[in-house]
Amino acid sequence: MWVCGALCRTRAPAQLGQRLLPESRRRRPASASFSASAEPSRVRALVYEHHGDPAKVVELKNLELAAVGGSDVHVKMLAAPINPSDINMIQGNYGLLPQLPAVGGNEGVGQVVAVGSGVTGVKPGDWVIPANPGLGTWRTEAVFGEEELITVPSDIPLQSAATLGVNPCTAYRMLVDFERLRPGDSIIQNASNSGVGQAVIQIAAARGLRTINVLRDRPDLQKLTDRLKNLGANHVVTEEELRKPEMKSFFKDVPQPRLALNCVGGKSSTELLRHLAPGGTMVTYGGMAKQPVIASVSQLIFKDLKLRGFWLSQWKKDHSPDQFKELILTLCDLIRRGQLTAPACSEVPLQDYLCALEASTQPFVSSKQILTM
Amino acid sequence: MWVCGALCRTRAPAQLGQRLLPESRRRRPASASFSASAEPSRVRALVYEHHGDPAKVVELKNLELAAVGGSDVHVKMLAAPINPSDINMIQGNYGLLPQLPAVGGNEGVGQVVAVGSGVTGVKPGDWVIPANPGLGTWRTEAVFGEEELITVPSDIPLQSAATLGVNPCTAYRMLVDFERLRPGDSIIQNASNSGVGQAVIQIAAARGLRTINVLRDRPDLQKLTDRLKNLGANHVVTEEELRKPEMKSFFKDVPQPRLALNCVGGKSSTELLRHLAPGGTMVTYGGMAKQPVIASVSQLIFKDLKLRGFWLSQWKKDHSPDQFKELILTLCDLIRRGQLTAPACSEVPLQDYLCALEASTQPFVSSKQILTM
Repeated sequence: MWVCGALCRTRAPAQLGQRLLPESRRRRPASASFSASAEPSRVRALVYEHHGDPAKVVELKNLELAAVGGSDVHVKMLAAPINPSDINMIQGNYGLLPQLPAVGGNEGVGQVVAVGSGVTGVKPGDWVIPANPGLGTWRTEAVFGEEELITVPSDIPLQSAATLGVNPCTAYRMLVDFERLRPGDSIIQNASNSGVGQAVIQIAAARGLRTINVLRDRPDLQKLTDRLKNLGANHVVTEEELRKPEMKSFFKDVPQPRLALNCVGGKSSTELLRHLAPGGTMVTYGGMAKQPVIASVSQLIFKDLKLRGFWLSQWKKDHSPDQFKELILTLCDLIRRGQLTAPACSEVPLQDYLCALEASTQPFVSSKQILTM
Repeated sequence: MWVCGALCRTRAPAQLGQRLLPESRRRRPASASFSASAEPSRVRALVYEHHGDPAKVVELKNLELAAVGGSDVHVKMLAAPINPSDINMIQGNYGLLPQLPAVGGNEGVGQVVAVGSGVTGVKPGDWVIPANPGLGTWRTEAVFGEEELITVPSDIPLQSAATLGVNPCTAYRMLVDFERLRPGDSIIQNASNSGVGQAVIQIAAARGLRTINVLRDRPDLQKLTDRLKNLGANHVVTEEELRKPEMKSFFKDVPQPRLALNCVGGKSSTELLRHLAPGGTMVTYGGMAKQPVIASVSQLIFKDLKLRGFWLSQWKKDHSPDQFKELILTLCDLIRRGQLTAPACSEVPLQDYLCALEASTQPFVSSKQILTM
């Protein structure tokens, strides 16, 4: 059965509102679970039928909008980012893969257009974001089940709302769930310019933590350093500097970090481990270098370093929807106080998705691509 | 100052009773803290003055016994094992190194000969073991401070008492402190024939846990397998078998382990990680392969595997002497119930230490060398 939309293998199909049919197959009798509306709206969506290079497998297609059932919510998407995990999912390199064909995108913000008679938690005009990954946010409109969405306040900037549900949540949980950090403690992270990295800098600063931010050397290093410092970064060092013996004197003035956040792996994570305080934890949440994490036996035994991983999808499975909503509201408070801004973004109209996909996979890209509908 | 005895860098010298002087320097005026008795007993001890190959740097020397001060305990050593960590300490490859020259050995059992007037916790005839590493147990007699010793019941076998303070303690803590295991759960370990490995098998069996025991292939595999099964091992597999696809069907019948105990590192630990249940923990307590521990980024993120280390010396620093005594008594209960026996031992007289040192560093040695005095 051709099912358009992101249908996660790890979730029961019934949980996901698969209410879009491809225009080309509109004449095919809809199955019981696929009721097409009498006068379908034209919906544009970025669809992929096979895993592979996003620029090759993703296509802009016209889909058909389903009727709004009793527990359904008709949403007009406003903006949806392209995250590294979206790319990994399209490539087939992710811990959670949709049934194909699927609509790309796992994050974004939409506005409610209409709701079914049984919907009580959202109303037309509300802003909503996906409750879970796999929703397929790169489309102009969709009909989702109420349980697939959570509302967010609409008094925060659009870019903040569109990028709220993944990276800042990941940053917050990693800062809070692994080590008991107190104001004045320091943390170290690599890929500090990533979406998560920028959120880490800001949330850490709001909590009185000092951040040591590691970057790959690059042409615009000073500009980027200034930008991260403006966000609240205390220290910015390159991977190369981190390997030098001079770092010993650096750690005479700065407390050794008790938490390291690793989005790279390989040599970069080896360096983070080397600078962790005894008993400290390194949390891995990405693997940009496509290299494993390596720890010496003595780092584990005598230095008591702890190696952990973090995946927001797993956190959501282990926690209630109310706990996720509470996390979102905590982050919205930081946004309203001016303590958490969206990462530098480039807004790109949906039809220019090829440019956006290409830009998002380039090295040293300092702005997040956000598709606007 | 020439100080004989194992003086740990991490402890204040005053904490350690350094009451032995080399016979060759007996005429040198004793420092205030080194009171030689008027008619010194002849004490034989295995001493090393430099780090290096144990067979080359360890020598049997005659030392002088100090007078028994108010808070001192005169102990006649009965038996002391040669553990891998003793060898590492002599080689200089350990997280805790003594001031040199030092007496070798960190574990063993002795009998109290006499006590100072201020000693209240032990009396002549009692069996005692070291409270902490660094005591230097490979000697016939010594005068220790009371706080350096803890008493053990003398109704347990001598070999059990001599090998109680390190390996069974390590095994017990690793089984209890990292994952909440329930009867029927399984654990996996490599180097299953080591002193810790044999204790793990027995303590796990006493707690209703199933053990999957990994061994290197060897000439006497069947004999060793039978011996481990007699101790309570549920499953014994070789490193080679563990790598085969057939292990998939094995884990249809046996629950995937939530705890892995790694004393090897390198490829062996990679295999343990591969078979761990999602969310499980691998605890590293040794590195026989002299290779680091390697985890893929996806094992950390998507499988949520946790990598930790365990070092009994650190555990003791983090816990009170009473907590260590409680642990010892718990293990003595298991010994009395017949649920915990000493590892297969070869008793070797102290003067034959060279044979014992050589045997303890051979591969595939299936019995622990115990020096008897």
